[in-house]
Amino acid sequence: MNEWTLTELDLEYISLGAAILGTGGGGDVYSGKLRAWQQMRAGRRIRIISPDALQDDDLVISVGGIGAPTVGFEKFERGDECYRAMRAIEKAVGKNAVALMTDEIGGGNAIEPMIAAALADLPVVDVDGMGRAFPELQMNTFFIYGMLPSPCALCDEKGNTIVYTEAVSPLWMERLARASTIAMGCTAGMALPPITGKQIKAWGVKYTISQSWRLGEAVIRARAEKRDSVAAILKHEHGKLLFRGKVVDVKRWTTGGFARGKLEIDGFSDFQRRSLQIEFQNENLIASVDGIVVATAPDLICIVDSETGRPISTEETRYGLRIAVLGLPATPLFRTTEALAVVGPRAFGYDLDYQPLGDYVMPEPKVKP
Amino acid sequence: MNEWTLTELDLEYISLGAAILGTGGGGDVYSGKLRAWQQMRAGRRIRIISPDALQDDDLVISVGGIGAPTVGFEKFERGDECYRAMRAIEKAVGKNAVALMTDEIGGGNAIEPMIAAALADLPVVDVDGMGRAFPELQMNTFFIYGMLPSPCALCDEKGNTIVYTEAVSPLWMERLARASTIAMGCTAGMALPPITGKQIKAWGVKYTISQSWRLGEAVIRARAEKRDSVAAILKHEHGKLLFRGKVVDVKRWTTGGFARGKLEIDGFSDFQRRSLQIEFQNENLIASVDGIVVATAPDLICIVDSETGRPISTEETRYGLRIAVLGLPATPLFRTTEALAVVGPRAFGYDLDYQPLGDYVMPEPKVKP
Repeated sequence: MNEWTLTELDLEYISLGAAILGTGGGGDVYSGKLRAWQQMRAGRRIRIISPDALQDDDLVISVGGIGAPTVGFEKFERGDECYRAMRAIEKAVGKNAVALMTDEIGGGNAIEPMIAAALADLPVVDVDGMGRAFPELQMNTFFIYGMLPSPCALCDEKGNTIVYTEAVSPLWMERLARASTIAMGCTAGMALPPITGKQIKAWGVKYTISQSWRLGEAVIRARAEKRDSVAAILKHEHGKLLFRGKVVDVKRWTTGGFARGKLEIDGFSDFQRRSLQIEFQNENLIASVDGIVVATAPDLICIVDSETGRPISTEETRYGLRIAVLGLPATPLFRTTEALAVVGPRAFGYDLDYQPLGDYVMPEPKVKP
Repeated sequence: MNEWTLTELDLEYISLGAAILGTGGGGDVYSGKLRAWQQMRAGRRIRIISPDALQDDDLVISVGGIGAPTVGFEKFERGDECYRAMRAIEKAVGKNAVALMTDEIGGGNAIEPMIAAALADLPVVDVDGMGRAFPELQMNTFFIYGMLPSPCALCDEKGNTIVYTEAVSPLWMERLARASTIAMGCTAGMALPPITGKQIKAWGVKYTISQSWRLGEAVIRARAEKRDSVAAILKHEHGKLLFRGKVVDVKRWTTGGFARGKLEIDGFSDFQRRSLQIEFQNENLIASVDGIVVATAPDLICIVDSETGRPISTEETRYGLRIAVLGLPATPLFRTTEALAVVGPRAFGYDLDYQPLGDYVMPEPKVKP
């Protein structure tokens, strides 16, 4: 089986690309990158394998951080939360995992499984369940298309471990894990139910680690060559420039375990005298220009610095930032009726139909089977 | 090994006695009794054994309801919550229980293990960890004297099961279980960590099922013989009459998963022109007459109907009830410095020293080893 062993520079690219795909959330990528570098410098390896290399009955465990990014930004992990959660699932099912993965490529959750995998000396699969980040557990292709809702495991930095041995639905799994996460201090490491190689090949959003790497590399190259880095993102992701402007108002509250809020942006250059509003729940969900909706979940609404293309998370956004707002097409796995019931605008309480924003192009893998 | 197989009348006595020992909480005993009768009428047996009959390495599991009595009073169980929680612990430790028990003899939690035991065809041990009821998990002799804080299991009526495989302390176990209970709808069935026969013999509050039976029987006999049933309780429990009066004010709020509140009682007969105040968190914690504290946890502050001796729970108390307030001595296991740190007035936020209320007399067992 081919493996791609990451260098520190690879992680730099991946974390930049993943932060853009995070649509404002997915966890802090900067502290994740530092912790992954620390693993490398301790002599541990982060190895990526292709989903196409998995055997049908291989057991894979998806791990990541859960909680409010506003808290995760300040309260750091002990470092082994996801690793312990993975071991708890192995113990619950009585079988060892052959690899780890993330269900959420966006933001710091692109990196979390790499840290756990370095500790376990297991590879990470070049796949995820969103192609972006989303605030709630049930919002990934695995749960949408049939992964069992349990067992899941949750670990905190104090040493507490919870195993949800039976959950009646992914939504109940979300409710129970969210309540525990809040009790643990609003951030925790989580492992999702075991999934097989066959299921990953059927339901996974493929090659998204490769996608993050290429996206991050494209931005850094554009900057080095003094080209427009926002244009580089749009070209790489087949996206659309929704707006350019200055942040004039941010309302943000951490409630129910989530970072929720609204942004107001006044337009400049081509968007002068127009106004953009974004609503978010950990991630950006809805963008409207002068009251007209221009993009909604599950399509990606990404905010980046208008000069450098640096992704700006919901917890960093503040008055005066000059930003570009980009709309990137979601995976077709999120555009079915089945999936839109879980990740479409109505799932977030908006009385809107989803209008797809351009065509999705499958990323090119960096590692072959 | 001797066994005492309960009749429907035995359950009538036990539930009355347990409700008095519940000090206002411990779960609704009436619906518990009906559900236990249902088990008997379905041909299942409720068998009681002596703690002295246990082998040192026997595994016993303590089960009971957790939540706010104000909710449990209206939202009934599916019926197998505690049974499923017990099985989850057996699975987590890879060993079968030889018996069940309650950690809380007061209120409905005297009955919960009997229902689970009937379903599992296991006996219930004539012991508990309080000799009363208390609102929080860590407040029992087993946790105080050294039972491990995990694994615990929690099950709801929807079919969700959570196993807390590692908790760093009994207090963290309480916090995590409480948060999950609230998410489950404020009531759930719980199994505590496995405990051995040796530990039960060292740390258990002994013969409290027998005590409940004898107490309930004494009240019913006094009523039948037209004697003072309040006096019958005081005599049986070596207690003290703290007050007689009419409830003139009840403040109650269900918050943080608990039923909290205050009662005001205006005195009559010997207590005329005096006023009693009681503060509660699920259970009655502090009683003061005209501003002078007359009883505190861990001693039992029991409210009963002043004529019939019928126990009145915190969720039933209302304006106009004519009541007697009784102070009963707590087990010596709760009167050590170690225990008072967990169940004394300061543990509930009151800046008071504990003043013991009379001497505890060990109950006489109804079943010999």
